[in-house]
Amino acid sequence: MSDHRRTAALQYAHEHEASFLKQLNEFASIPSVSTEPAYEPAIQRAAEWVASQLRALGMEQVKVYPTGGHPVVYGASLNAGPGAPTVLIYGHYDVQPAEPLELWESGPFEPTIRGENLYGRGVSDMKGQVMACLDALEAITRTAGKLPVNVKFLIEGEEEIGSPHLEGFIAGHKELLSSDFALNPDTGMISPEFPAITYALRGLAYYELRIYGPDHDLHSGLFGGVVHNPAQVLCELIAGMHDDQGRVTLPGFYDSVRLLDQEEREELARLPTDEAFYLAQTGAPALWGESGYRPAERTGARPTLEVNGLLSGYTGSGTKTVLPAWAMAKISMRLVPDQDPEEVYRQLCKYLEEYSPPTIRWEVLDLQGGLPSISDRHSPGVLALSKALEAVWGKRPLMKREGGSVPVVGQFQEYLGIQSVNGGFGLYDDRAHSPNEKLHLPTWKRGIDALIHFFYNLVE
Amino acid sequence: MSDHRRTAALQYAHEHEASFLKQLNEFASIPSVSTEPAYEPAIQRAAEWVASQLRALGMEQVKVYPTGGHPVVYGASLNAGPGAPTVLIYGHYDVQPAEPLELWESGPFEPTIRGENLYGRGVSDMKGQVMACLDALEAITRTAGKLPVNVKFLIEGEEEIGSPHLEGFIAGHKELLSSDFALNPDTGMISPEFPAITYALRGLAYYELRIYGPDHDLHSGLFGGVVHNPAQVLCELIAGMHDDQGRVTLPGFYDSVRLLDQEEREELARLPTDEAFYLAQTGAPALWGESGYRPAERTGARPTLEVNGLLSGYTGSGTKTVLPAWAMAKISMRLVPDQDPEEVYRQLCKYLEEYSPPTIRWEVLDLQGGLPSISDRHSPGVLALSKALEAVWGKRPLMKREGGSVPVVGQFQEYLGIQSVNGGFGLYDDRAHSPNEKLHLPTWKRGIDALIHFFYNLVE
Repeated sequence: MSDHRRTAALQYAHEHEASFLKQLNEFASIPSVSTEPAYEPAIQRAAEWVASQLRALGMEQVKVYPTGGHPVVYGASLNAGPGAPTVLIYGHYDVQPAEPLELWESGPFEPTIRGENLYGRGVSDMKGQVMACLDALEAITRTAGKLPVNVKFLIEGEEEIGSPHLEGFIAGHKELLSSDFALNPDTGMISPEFPAITYALRGLAYYELRIYGPDHDLHSGLFGGVVHNPAQVLCELIAGMHDDQGRVTLPGFYDSVRLLDQEEREELARLPTDEAFYLAQTGAPALWGESGYRPAERTGARPTLEVNGLLSGYTGSGTKTVLPAWAMAKISMRLVPDQDPEEVYRQLCKYLEEYSPPTIRWEVLDLQGGLPSISDRHSPGVLALSKALEAVWGKRPLMKREGGSVPVVGQFQEYLGIQSVNGGFGLYDDRAHSPNEKLHLPTWKRGIDALIHFFYNLVE
Repeated sequence: MSDHRRTAALQYAHEHEASFLKQLNEFASIPSVSTEPAYEPAIQRAAEWVASQLRALGMEQVKVYPTGGHPVVYGASLNAGPGAPTVLIYGHYDVQPAEPLELWESGPFEPTIRGENLYGRGVSDMKGQVMACLDALEAITRTAGKLPVNVKFLIEGEEEIGSPHLEGFIAGHKELLSSDFALNPDTGMISPEFPAITYALRGLAYYELRIYGPDHDLHSGLFGGVVHNPAQVLCELIAGMHDDQGRVTLPGFYDSVRLLDQEEREELARLPTDEAFYLAQTGAPALWGESGYRPAERTGARPTLEVNGLLSGYTGSGTKTVLPAWAMAKISMRLVPDQDPEEVYRQLCKYLEEYSPPTIRWEVLDLQGGLPSISDRHSPGVLALSKALEAVWGKRPLMKREGGSVPVVGQFQEYLGIQSVNGGFGLYDDRAHSPNEKLHLPTWKRGIDALIHFFYNLVE
């Protein structure tokens, strides 16, 4: 019987491709840029639009929750019965700014099809992913009359600005959100040919390191030789943060790092992200990284430290013979289980206490932190998605650890005690955050099919 | 007889303080900012104004020479007879920009007396110094009828922008400028109590070092761990440019450095620029520098390498998880005899060839270079100025090596074969290049007296 329902839902989805696309166009036309106050009305409109979609699907408790910032949209369908699992579906309705506008070939908020792709800001990250979930549920609801599982939607509006109010919302609504596991389609695939499940995400610890030397900018001729140049000190401190094996030297940095076992290394070795892949993606003259690990392990399963920005002294054209009063670096670490940002903060400070010279003062601003996360690759949610992807693509999905950070996954783990199944249908080359963001429509449609399988797989 | 003339000239100077000040006010009211095209008419006006002053003093061959940039003013008085020495007096009529204007207590181009000081842009650097020379010569001319020495004036208008056309002018007018030595009052005193002669100046070699990694900015989560971060590489390369003794590690950097002998070290030890002086001047938590040398030696007689600027990636407020495509540093070296900027350029490139990793590409832009210079402390010109300063201040002047660079001194040495006597009457705390630049009037007046003595000393 389930096979019949499954087939009917898939057929519904195929017959309704045009209306699914129309809905996505409508959603993607709302310029819900979260970074700019000017887009505040569009943010509100996008939240209300999502709420109306949830209501149209017959969801209950649909509400646009105000927060200290942009609202959170919630809705639930809990009629699957006590034996059925409850899935918390996460998404965000906000998008990155579209600038620089002149680089777009069609308007960022006028979704346009060219070839196999739909172009527009947010179509891949992640309005298309949110709609794929809604479309799959619509197909099931309209064909079977009800959902086989309970679902709860949590769609936020501040993901692109670091979700400043989401953690508080989750902590304050534990019961409302309580579920068996979460589905997070905010991660993607490597290419259209390789379906993938992301079972681990790196955490983030982001700091600004400031080095202060003299109390004002000095003439480098008059004072060069008696004052320790803060820009030089900054460089020396940063240079000391890696050893010659590409390892991070902060004291105790690797103490909490969960090691890879042989089985997991073999699973990760299936990934097509080899050296050639990364060379092509980055255009770097040669790769680099912690010795003893493959690229996919270095980006996914090993912690790293990056300099995200440097600023000191004179940076215009030509020359200015200044010995700068201060220097600044943005420094962030990508964390893996079981590291935590607070521990890393202490390690950074300890490093600075140990190695900073008495000729300067230093200061560390703690700008952002998020826990790393990992899901059991053999959990029912992961297996259900794995089978679903295999049903559509005809091959076992790749199991990957994502190098980026999705703080909400860590927060679900921390506050709700649930793991996340991370599988979206965005592609590496979708230009998320860049001009001409696109969604590969054939992959997106396959994604809707896969989600239909996924929901049915959970009860079979 | 010379004593009578000397006394008469000094008396003239004292009686004409008001008119000397009035002339300086007139000069300092011209906003001859060389960096901004908007001030072009003021630059022309300042050049003509200087020429008119030279004519008023009875100078011959007075001419405003056009260059590829701002004009050079020339004038000569060659009536002292064949036995008398010829002094080439260098100066500049251009000034630094006055910005930020809101920090000035009185208009930068409305010279204003408060207490013992005259406030205004350029009053110390160096319109006041140029006027002191003209005033001393006026006092001598008006009282003795003629000058005891031959003088040639070379007053440029591009000093504050690195004198891009001066070298060509000097090279193209060797005969016009031929002299026995130069007087350069574009260096100053440490405090009103300590008359000083600068017998050596450091040269300058200024570069921009660029490090290129991936061909576009990358997401630090997706790519952190496989790509060598250009900002990190830049820091590592810069960190390697000094050893733990504060010495510069560029290959061969010290090979051409002329060593200090015991006598010179003792002379330099008389300078009041001890650790406490530099701590007070800079506000740095502690001093730093090449081990084995006193502060005055480190700033004056030893070469140094400074980071003048750093720029990479994201430098705004908050966070952006970017792995930047490139990083840049402005790096300059202060050079001492017998280093030369071309040699240092090769050393920098050699260092980069040796130590830069294959994971990046580097590029060095050669932005500015100037030779270091040194004068014989026992030459007639230096001795004449030394005696002059002692006559006015009642103490033997300090002999110092200046850490800054005055490229023209090196160019006079290179093209005209002459040394420079560097002695001006600006003070360390005159805020040259900063808001509320000032000239200490009692010191300036003593300076005029000292210059009168100087010109007479040259023929006695």
